[in-house]
Amino acid sequence: MERNLVLPTEGRPHSALPGIDHLTLAGGEHGLRGLSVWQQSIDAGEATPPHRHDCEEVVVVSEGSGVLEVDGVRQEFFAPCTLVVPRNLPHQILNTGSAPLRLVAAFSASPVQAFFPDGAPIALPWAS
Amino acid sequence: MERNLVLPTEGRPHSALPGIDHLTLAGGEHGLRGLSVWQQSIDAGEATPPHRHDCEEVVVVSEGSGVLEVDGVRQEFFAPCTLVVPRNLPHQILNTGSAPLRLVAAFSASPVQAFFPDGAPIALPWAS
Repeated sequence: MERNLVLPTEGRPHSALPGIDHLTLAGGEHGLRGLSVWQQSIDAGEATPPHRHDCEEVVVVSEGSGVLEVDGVRQEFFAPCTLVVPRNLPHQILNTGSAPLRLVAAFSASPVQAFFPDGAPIALPWAS
Repeated sequence: MERNLVLPTEGRPHSALPGIDHLTLAGGEHGLRGLSVWQQSIDAGEATPPHRHDCEEVVVVSEGSGVLEVDGVRQEFFAPCTLVVPRNLPHQILNTGSAPLRLVAAFSASPVQAFFPDGAPIALPWAS
């Protein structure tokens, strides 16, 4: 087997959206076809844009607190916890705390497609 | 939306195999069909059994060190890192360090089926 299946986190390239530090831990470039895993840190007071995916998403929150809005319903959350986002439902993750919100997000697709709630594709600044 | 999509980690039921503490963070019981996420801690000197899945797997290692064996090839790893296990390849994760190996594992299926390398199903003691 030629492929390197161990990916040290240090030194890997990060990407960013405003207020969000992003690292694709594993995805299509590692041979995956139905699974992607991201690591993100969302700054205090910041949030993802409202968006949806054509796949399922699970977010494991290791530090911080915030609000998950899914399909117009808002729920508070506090680490450590897990967030479940069903396929195609519009959602947003808001860091309403005073410290960074640290999370690992898993998706049932690779690459992960993201769309604004009106269906327009979001051009993500990272590969997945 | 009736479903609770925020799952606090504290107080949720853990399962165990010898040397492995397990918590299903999200899976079929949360409405997922193509994604499962587990949290595990493997004691020092312990290991998963050799096994394979009929889905892709990504393991995010937050603490500890060990050896990943996939299809007979062994690679050392040290946290923080990510392990990629392709679909259907026999694999084993060994904690060769002196501290617990802490990880979150994501799978491109729900429920997750596990098999011994000879194809015999493994009756997992947890739901996924």
